Amino acid sequence: MQEGEPRLQSYFSDGTYTKHLSYKPISTEESSRYPAVLTRAQSELMNYNGLGISVLEMSHRTPDFTHIITSAESLLRELLNIPENYRVLFMQGGGTGQFGAVPLNLMGLKEDRCADYIVTGTWSKKAAKEAEKYGKVNVIHPEADQYTGIPDSSSWPLNPSASYVYYCCNETVHGIEFNFIPDTNGVILVTDMSSNFLSRPVDVSKFGLIFAGAQKNVGSAGVTIVIVREDLLGKAYKECPTILNYAVQAKNNSLENTPPTYSIYIVKLVLEWLKNNGGTDTMNQLNNQKSSMIYDVINSSNGFYLCPVDEACRSRMNIPFRIGNLEGDTVLEQQFLEGASKLGMISLKGHRSVGGIRVSLYNAVTVEETQALAAYMKEFLNKHQK
Amino acid sequence: MQEGEPRLQSYFSDGTYTKHLSYKPISTEESSRYPAVLTRAQSELMNYNGLGISVLEMSHRTPDFTHIITSAESLLRELLNIPENYRVLFMQGGGTGQFGAVPLNLMGLKEDRCADYIVTGTWSKKAAKEAEKYGKVNVIHPEADQYTGIPDSSSWPLNPSASYVYYCCNETVHGIEFNFIPDTNGVILVTDMSSNFLSRPVDVSKFGLIFAGAQKNVGSAGVTIVIVREDLLGKAYKECPTILNYAVQAKNNSLENTPPTYSIYIVKLVLEWLKNNGGTDTMNQLNNQKSSMIYDVINSSNGFYLCPVDEACRSRMNIPFRIGNLEGDTVLEQQFLEGASKLGMISLKGHRSVGGIRVSLYNAVTVEETQALAAYMKEFLNKHQK
Repeated sequence: MQEGEPRLQSYFSDGTYTKHLSYKPISTEESSRYPAVLTRAQSELMNYNGLGISVLEMSHRTPDFTHIITSAESLLRELLNIPENYRVLFMQGGGTGQFGAVPLNLMGLKEDRCADYIVTGTWSKKAAKEAEKYGKVNVIHPEADQYTGIPDSSSWPLNPSASYVYYCCNETVHGIEFNFIPDTNGVILVTDMSSNFLSRPVDVSKFGLIFAGAQKNVGSAGVTIVIVREDLLGKAYKECPTILNYAVQAKNNSLENTPPTYSIYIVKLVLEWLKNNGGTDTMNQLNNQKSSMIYDVINSSNGFYLCPVDEACRSRMNIPFRIGNLEGDTVLEQQFLEGASKLGMISLKGHRSVGGIRVSLYNAVTVEETQALAAYMKEFLNKHQK
Repeated sequence: MQEGEPRLQSYFSDGTYTKHLSYKPISTEESSRYPAVLTRAQSELMNYNGLGISVLEMSHRTPDFTHIITSAESLLRELLNIPENYRVLFMQGGGTGQFGAVPLNLMGLKEDRCADYIVTGTWSKKAAKEAEKYGKVNVIHPEADQYTGIPDSSSWPLNPSASYVYYCCNETVHGIEFNFIPDTNGVILVTDMSSNFLSRPVDVSKFGLIFAGAQKNVGSAGVTIVIVREDLLGKAYKECPTILNYAVQAKNNSLENTPPTYSIYIVKLVLEWLKNNGGTDTMNQLNNQKSSMIYDVINSSNGFYLCPVDEACRSRMNIPFRIGNLEGDTVLEQQFLEGASKLGMISLKGHRSVGGIRVSLYNAVTVEETQALAAYMKEFLNKHQK
């Protein structure tokens, strides 16, 4: 696919499992200067920067790869305004790797070796379960297993002697997103931003650690970005595997072991694209605009489309809904998916654990694609509403 | 670079840090049927299999990715004749990840929680050090820190109650390769084959576990292949992080968490190429031929080129040598590197920990490239030998 050509498919899948990278430049002028990520990756695949070799085969100890990884870090620092006392690490193992790495590195920050986990969906629940291997885990509001909202933060029974407070900033399966940064009364705050990373500005200084698997908003599967406050390093359990040890990776600039070179290169391309297309402020505006289009159709459908999530914490990234009733009219839902697919809009099926429909609107999804989906939803509504 | 075109550079770097993937088909007839790996990756980058999306953005839960990962596994099973009672896992974290994963999963196979490590160079030494976090490590011949050979196996003080015996099949920094499978008297045998994987046939049934980072002979950095005997699964320490737990990954067919999708796709392309170009028998023959060319020049140089490694265990993958004398005449060595670079032969510098010259001859390096290097070595010898 060349620039300017339409995509064959519009991709709306949950970023846990899918994302798309066909970033299109915003204006034609930009277009010539900053080609779309995949176009550029393709053009450079056999011969990177005139070197006669591919990034796929490039040594991670060469000046050329050093340039790639340091550029990626600089771009990220600029885009998120990361303070100097934070380190940026490029690791492997995804969110699941971090579910282990966070307690292995940070549970020992305080004597009690315990941590508070605010569980609001599938991913924070998994993180809490992994952390139980390494210390005492206090699940905030453990009875809230419906996952349709965030319990009122004033009611959270936070433990002042916790080593950290953990939450998942956006739950992809349940469509729940934090639009505020929790106040932990001085306890270190850790968040999984895998699925809404770079979708809006963030005040990094409020966090002890932010991590994000790349495969939603910032690249392809295989690399995980960790932003960690420097003074928290060096307290890992001695049993922490080297590949998950933040202090070791920081000391070696993420090159303690061979890093996922090509994935880091793709991250760099995405970050360049992001910088040249308005950064996180523009992404925030576009993401608000896109998600509003879909929520507007849901809200004005007189209960034909039903999103179970509290309005205050509806995700801008993942919009799960049922058709017909709260349990979902599976015949109508199947018709909806088939009709969408015929229009080239794919991956709209809800997560297998919850069913229904889910629309994922990562940075790479365009306003035009979202408009087309909203129009289809309206048309489907008009045709099938009794 | 298109097929048939010469590479801009010939790459001889240590596969720990570099490899090259420009596999060229052996015959012209093959050429039309099986394009070189990078050529194919480039042609499919924007639109895989007519789907209208890239593998870089493909969900790991789609039928198309399932086809990629199961094809990769089937090809590997065929190429290495892997018995049915072994599982093939695609993991993250490279060799360093496995240095932790092996003891975390296997140290508990026996009550004593101890393991024997045959240390013959940098990588087995690192593995032994990581294993010490998780149990008692018995280093075989710890005094042998020169790393110029493999101590006589009849003298190894193996511990019959060890959970496993570990060795590194090819040490890239020191150029030492096992050309035999150690007899452990029934104790489970574990090996790091990262740097000579698929360079020759191997009797998998002799091993409890084989692992290999992909970035030498089988793909690009970011994926690690583990071949493990099924009955060894399920004995991991409870502190084993989920991403390093073999039983969990086996149960979920390597999809417990998002796998490094694109790296696995590249592995599949390399394995297809390998199958269609004679498999491990042909690779073995070519690797013997290539390494003999270089060792022949060294052996007949009257001490101008010096390889410190015992002849019985000289690596076919990595050939370290000094020029002039055993400590290396650094002026001559610099001249050698500069002259090679002018001829388009790069990455011949020895590992920074040992200096000198190192030639790496992974599967992807052609006989022609090796011939050109051997010819250059002879010419350099004739010019500079007193």
